Amino acid sequence: MDNEFLKQLDLEHIWHPCTQMKDHENVPLIPIKKAKGVWLYDFDDKRYLDCISSWWVNLFGHCNEKIANAIKKQVDELEHVILAGFTHEPIIKLSARLCEKVGRDFNKCFYADNGSSAVEIALKMSFHYHLNQGLKKNKFLSLSNSYHGETLGALSVGDVALYKDTYNPLLLECLNTPVPKNKDYQEELFVLKGILEKHSSEICAFILEPLVQCAGNMHMYESGFIDEAIKLCHEFNVQVIFDEIAVGFGRTGTLFALHQCKQSPDFICLSKGITGGFMPLSVVLTKDEIYQAFYAPYKDYKAFLHSHSYTGNTLACAAANAVLDIFENENILEKNKILSTFIQQEFSRLKKFDFLGNFRTCGMISAFDILNAKYERAGLEVFKRALKKSLLLRPLANTIYFMPPYVITKEQISYVVDSLEQIFKKF
Amino acid sequence: MDNEFLKQLDLEHIWHPCTQMKDHENVPLIPIKKAKGVWLYDFDDKRYLDCISSWWVNLFGHCNEKIANAIKKQVDELEHVILAGFTHEPIIKLSARLCEKVGRDFNKCFYADNGSSAVEIALKMSFHYHLNQGLKKNKFLSLSNSYHGETLGALSVGDVALYKDTYNPLLLECLNTPVPKNKDYQEELFVLKGILEKHSSEICAFILEPLVQCAGNMHMYESGFIDEAIKLCHEFNVQVIFDEIAVGFGRTGTLFALHQCKQSPDFICLSKGITGGFMPLSVVLTKDEIYQAFYAPYKDYKAFLHSHSYTGNTLACAAANAVLDIFENENILEKNKILSTFIQQEFSRLKKFDFLGNFRTCGMISAFDILNAKYERAGLEVFKRALKKSLLLRPLANTIYFMPPYVITKEQISYVVDSLEQIFKKF
Repeated sequence: MDNEFLKQLDLEHIWHPCTQMKDHENVPLIPIKKAKGVWLYDFDDKRYLDCISSWWVNLFGHCNEKIANAIKKQVDELEHVILAGFTHEPIIKLSARLCEKVGRDFNKCFYADNGSSAVEIALKMSFHYHLNQGLKKNKFLSLSNSYHGETLGALSVGDVALYKDTYNPLLLECLNTPVPKNKDYQEELFVLKGILEKHSSEICAFILEPLVQCAGNMHMYESGFIDEAIKLCHEFNVQVIFDEIAVGFGRTGTLFALHQCKQSPDFICLSKGITGGFMPLSVVLTKDEIYQAFYAPYKDYKAFLHSHSYTGNTLACAAANAVLDIFENENILEKNKILSTFIQQEFSRLKKFDFLGNFRTCGMISAFDILNAKYERAGLEVFKRALKKSLLLRPLANTIYFMPPYVITKEQISYVVDSLEQIFKKF
Repeated sequence: MDNEFLKQLDLEHIWHPCTQMKDHENVPLIPIKKAKGVWLYDFDDKRYLDCISSWWVNLFGHCNEKIANAIKKQVDELEHVILAGFTHEPIIKLSARLCEKVGRDFNKCFYADNGSSAVEIALKMSFHYHLNQGLKKNKFLSLSNSYHGETLGALSVGDVALYKDTYNPLLLECLNTPVPKNKDYQEELFVLKGILEKHSSEICAFILEPLVQCAGNMHMYESGFIDEAIKLCHEFNVQVIFDEIAVGFGRTGTLFALHQCKQSPDFICLSKGITGGFMPLSVVLTKDEIYQAFYAPYKDYKAFLHSHSYTGNTLACAAANAVLDIFENENILEKNKILSTFIQQEFSRLKKFDFLGNFRTCGMISAFDILNAKYERAGLEVFKRALKKSLLLRPLANTIYFMPPYVITKEQISYVVDSLEQIFKKF
């Protein structure tokens, strides 16, 4: 087995996600054999530092032993059981812990398998909540530049043209309000208020990715806007959904982005880091008040009958409990503060390149943009050159971002910045 | 830890799928501690025979050692890696094997995490395929009584009122054609032809669950209808999607329901049994001809940019390869034929109850209906009484079905039927 053999076999049978497959005529497709910590190893004995936590899912390094052991133990005991009418200890423990860690009266957990499904659950739940209250609302409001997933409902509330425009005839008509461009967000609040004044009787919920719009080129914006927006929405009887799928589990510096906001939403969607990057799991947290609106005699037909076969999978819950153990026992958020400052310092070395700009950091997410690039696909150019320096980077258009597993060392961070420096010297 | 303590803690924090939570004021909610083979064990040392394979996912028994070992081995080597730009051996192996086993020129695999997401992928792919060919079609056709999942796109093509009606204002407008009621399907073909004659210029694809509409009360219908329907659709340039999420992996007697049809669809969705019931994974198989319609220079913007973070998760692929090993090495389909005949024989003992009818079997799926029940929720009544006899049954309205793991023994089958006999004697 070598890279080339596996690549050919792969291309015969696999249609990769988020990929123009023709690109692989001249972009490498790399088969990974094993992984440990921040490193991925291919079949030609080359290694790559996973600077993007494998699509923002990995928290504590690949093949983390504590998470692996939790899965290994669970798989001998109970691998999975239907979650309707039945339950299991790992999910009960996980739910109690998530509610406690999120806080703010988030007291109920509804599970699914991926981020898109969690967003769909929150949208359906909000719509159904209003309906159970006798209100027929059927629109959703989201932020410009937002991304919430790929199933048709989730795609409808997104605003990244690249993923969305093709499918417009299949999508829900949604309302959109501008995300703040900078620290002054008065104009954006004014627009939001105008939309609410005009449309609040039709709007079920306002969905947003708090603090960082990750797929939206890592755009960062103020918690102050979020607080004011939530207050406005609640004044107008519009619910608020936090999509913390990418930003949750410590990425923004706090365990959840919510903890940097004074106001609280009505729903929080979590996924990605929840299992430490080991396997799919997602959850929507909400409050007892909302749960109660569905709690009624069966024949009232008020129940939320959404389901997925593997809802609350036992192995995934065991992994998620191990992730929370690591947060509790290893002082991760404090250690990440030190790392975040160091990352910011190191990345500022790249400011000397006048074609790089908009350097920004939020917790363990750092990004900058290539301005006036001479390459048509500058990000792809960086991806290819980074691979040669043993780095897995995956720029979003002309935005280069760094979102590593939390086990990265200072030396490894410096190595990443040294490598980027060399790349941009000859760019 | 006992059942009651865990139940209370569960109800404080978990909102269960497909459940009116108020039902649990008098319907048991059972915490499962461990499982082995067909048996689930609770915290009060009571056991339950899993007659429904935990929502139709389990194939070879709970905690099957071969699948567990495959996951344990994989989790130490490579737990997960991003599938865009990167790949891994378990997914390459799995894809090649799935293409070979499905056959009929199904040569490309696109992965996701659950059945709903697979259906959404097939719908988006079909829409996008026509668009890439210059055809603006934006409607889908499905069968009456169909079920395809819970995300808004998947829900749109379903037809089970209980799950769908509430959300109508959020759903795509779809076309619906009647499923055959019995062996004579000429009238249903006539209606289908009429719809195609009138609407084929707007219809991207016809989606159906071949042979058995599982969530649609285990309604079984003829492969002959499917063959004629596919021929008609293809004459009218309408694609066909097989949703084999529930019926795949041997449930209908052949490895895939496709293998009982002479004609082939354009897309096949698989999930549930794919990992033997261990963890979420789904895949859409399609043909090179369709893949090629998306294969173009990047700047043509023809790529299928759908993705989920955990697409092609390594652990799930390792489990799926173990499942295919078991099919290959243990003569499962032949053994299931003997079991299926035995199940049919044993269940026919229940025909003596004149309020039971419509006894039907397709491979490893058997069902009958309670006619003229004196209970308002007869299925729920059977569920509760079955629990007392150590059986996990989960009737669909008044339909009682039996879809056990393939490791069930003849003695266990007889025990199930004996128990049902006792239940119905006092019904």
